[in-house]
Amino acid sequence: KIDGDRLWASLMEMAKIGPGVAGGNNRQTLTDADAEGRALFQRWCEEAGLTMGVDAMGTMFARREGADPDALPVYVGSHLDTQPTGGKYDGVLGVLGGLEIIRSLDDMGIRTKHPIVVTNWTNEEGTRFAPAMMASGVFAGQHELDWAYAREDAEGKRFGDELERIGWKGDEEVGARQMHAFFELHIEQGPILEAEGKEIGVVTHGQGLWWLEVRLTGKESHTGSTPMAMRVNAGLGMARITEAVHRIAMDHQPDAVGAVGQANVYPNSRNVIPGRAVFTVDIRSPERAKLDAMRGEVEAEAQRIADELGLGIEIEPVGHFDPVTFDGTCVAAVRAAADRLGYSHRDIVSGAGHDACWINRVAPTAMVMCPCKDGLSHNEAEEITQDWATKGADVLFHAVLETAGI
Amino acid sequence: KIDGDRLWASLMEMAKIGPGVAGGNNRQTLTDADAEGRALFQRWCEEAGLTMGVDAMGTMFARREGADPDALPVYVGSHLDTQPTGGKYDGVLGVLGGLEIIRSLDDMGIRTKHPIVVTNWTNEEGTRFAPAMMASGVFAGQHELDWAYAREDAEGKRFGDELERIGWKGDEEVGARQMHAFFELHIEQGPILEAEGKEIGVVTHGQGLWWLEVRLTGKESHTGSTPMAMRVNAGLGMARITEAVHRIAMDHQPDAVGAVGQANVYPNSRNVIPGRAVFTVDIRSPERAKLDAMRGEVEAEAQRIADELGLGIEIEPVGHFDPVTFDGTCVAAVRAAADRLGYSHRDIVSGAGHDACWINRVAPTAMVMCPCKDGLSHNEAEEITQDWATKGADVLFHAVLETAGI
Ligand SMILES: NC(=O)NCCC(=O)O
Ligand SMILES: NC(=O)NCCC(=O)O
Repeated sequence: KIDGDRLWASLMEMAKIGPGVAGGNNRQTLTDADAEGRALFQRWCEEAGLTMGVDAMGTMFARREGADPDALPVYVGSHLDTQPTGGKYDGVLGVLGGLEIIRSLDDMGIRTKHPIVVTNWTNEEGTRFAPAMMASGVFAGQHELDWAYAREDAEGKRFGDELERIGWKGDEEVGARQMHAFFELHIEQGPILEAEGKEIGVVTHGQGLWWLEVRLTGKESHTGSTPMAMRVNAGLGMARITEAVHRIAMDHQPDAVGAVGQANVYPNSRNVIPGRAVFTVDIRSPERAKLDAMRGEVEAEAQRIADELGLGIEIEPVGHFDPVTFDGTCVAAVRAAADRLGYSHRDIVSGAGHDACWINRVAPTAMVMCPCKDGLSHNEAEEITQDWATKGADVLFHAVLETAGI
Repeated sequence: KIDGDRLWASLMEMAKIGPGVAGGNNRQTLTDADAEGRALFQRWCEEAGLTMGVDAMGTMFARREGADPDALPVYVGSHLDTQPTGGKYDGVLGVLGGLEIIRSLDDMGIRTKHPIVVTNWTNEEGTRFAPAMMASGVFAGQHELDWAYAREDAEGKRFGDELERIGWKGDEEVGARQMHAFFELHIEQGPILEAEGKEIGVVTHGQGLWWLEVRLTGKESHTGSTPMAMRVNAGLGMARITEAVHRIAMDHQPDAVGAVGQANVYPNSRNVIPGRAVFTVDIRSPERAKLDAMRGEVEAEAQRIADELGLGIEIEPVGHFDPVTFDGTCVAAVRAAADRLGYSHRDIVSGAGHDACWINRVAPTAMVMCPCKDGLSHNEAEEITQDWATKGADVLFHAVLETAGI
């Protein structure tokens, strides 16, 4: 078993970097805080004798040599970036859980046959730069590197420039690495495991997603002197589409969710009818057909609402992944590890997207989940127990050991 | 008659300061651009031989002596500040129209019995610092000076500090001045005059207003992994209340309007259910009873929606004025001036709030309106013809002459 105290201490140490305003973290991708978090992780990797590689997307690969250096490495990891008001565990547990495996192997004097590489994927969260899981997406051949570099944040700063600014643009070609397998430990971010009293989620599938950026064009005018009949109110359009997204998700229950997370009106003045609204629809389902049906309904409703209010409308997909079925052998390794350790578990579908969802396209992949309090994530109050973290890392350890061989 | 070419040239000169992005202006209150606009106005006033007084709210009072220096002055004016995406005439026409009266009196060698004071009221627009018509509100005893100083913009900067920063905090006690009368020339900001082919609006009344800032508290959580039934979505609450405000305004038609102009969700991330939403409701009616009924309905609906979604809610009034009936004698002077000049006119209710609405409480007050293209205002595309501006200033000139006496 891994050392749960050491893992927890590392989690708490990392959480000091990029503190939030309510006990969580704001360590958004390619900020100074992100650079500081990377430097700490790098120091820990050096202390553990690992060799660091960095690719052109800034993804960090810390390698522990195997008995057979020609064998393809087993990869573990997740991401160190957070939401603007994020928790201390989302992503971080998977990276530092991976590091804890290395430390435990060192303690036990075990050399695996396959090398092991602990990975920190750049920009998993997708808040500052859409889409989410960006570096793993480039790695898996889903996006072009230049396209990723050109993505802009809300201030118009480009991903490529910011990566260079924080000093983490590496030399390695993105996606050149071959993997024997990839395992990602992550908190559930939902309520199921805790509610059912299960210690481990064996992730068999992941939901698919569409992010649709909607841009409505109305006519800025005075809130007081413009007669109701003459208004072309982009904010009202945003409100109606927000309600429609909710209703469509409810109609497709179960196995469907939908919401508008980002919402902006312009010029955002109390006495101006919004002349423009820009917002993002997030719809998800584990079923491809349902996901596509929802997208069709959202687009049709949005168009109908725009027409009824006389608004111009543009809808641009800014994020997408298909529902995922993880690799049977890797999933079985996770399930077997939980069984061997005597931890209660159940199969589970990931509601969130993860780097593992992209890597699954280029390598055998699976995920381990541990519960989180009240299913709360993407919230500074995100919380887990040390026991949950430890058991999750134990299962990761055993699944990796079995896959990497001794 | 006044010199329409000179008035137009001054309007175009002022419009160069704080240019917008689409042909209009962004000369928001207490910005550097505001300071620059004030300096230009001051220079013009000095060139016209006027004496400048500045009060502790930064309002500028440029005085032309009368034949009877003990007679109370007749005040004219409006505001030089603009919306973030504002037009070139909203407010500016009233200030520079006032200055044009002075220049014309000089040309004609006329000395009025009462002094004339051209006024630039600070922060009429209320976008950067709520409420609107703030300096005239303090002048009329509606707000305390210290309360106004403590108002904050979106970045937490205080009105009093910003006024000092731009160098326009004057010595004069606010509201100490006595007025014989106040006249404000303004563009209509609505479609009625143009549609009916009238050159002049004789403003008999002004709509009343409530600005209600609504703050909803939900629970930030993951858009993907949070089941629909567990969501506490503040953004959905904002959407429903936005729709309710629209419906309530439609129900009270005619003589009622309502909209949400300012809308913000937090943390404003594509994959986070909004945990907080802050937005402002703007409702108006010329009828006091209707205005209060609408406020009651908006508050009840907002509470019902918050309850149905499990949201916390706070509603704070951040702006208010009662419906206004302007002074009969001053209104008659405006109507008589339009008749004398042979300009087509009609009585009209102001849909927007104006400094005149507050000053009407402490001095006999009336307003002159001229048409604007397509009723468009609070939009960079706001437009008027030189002919409309000239005729409006002519009427202002004659109404002021009659009131100030020769
Ligand atoms: N795990 C996680 O929160 N990833 C962010 C991408 C998503 O929105 O699912
Ligand atoms: N005239 C004008 O646009 N004033 C701003 C205050 C209001 O919202 O009515």
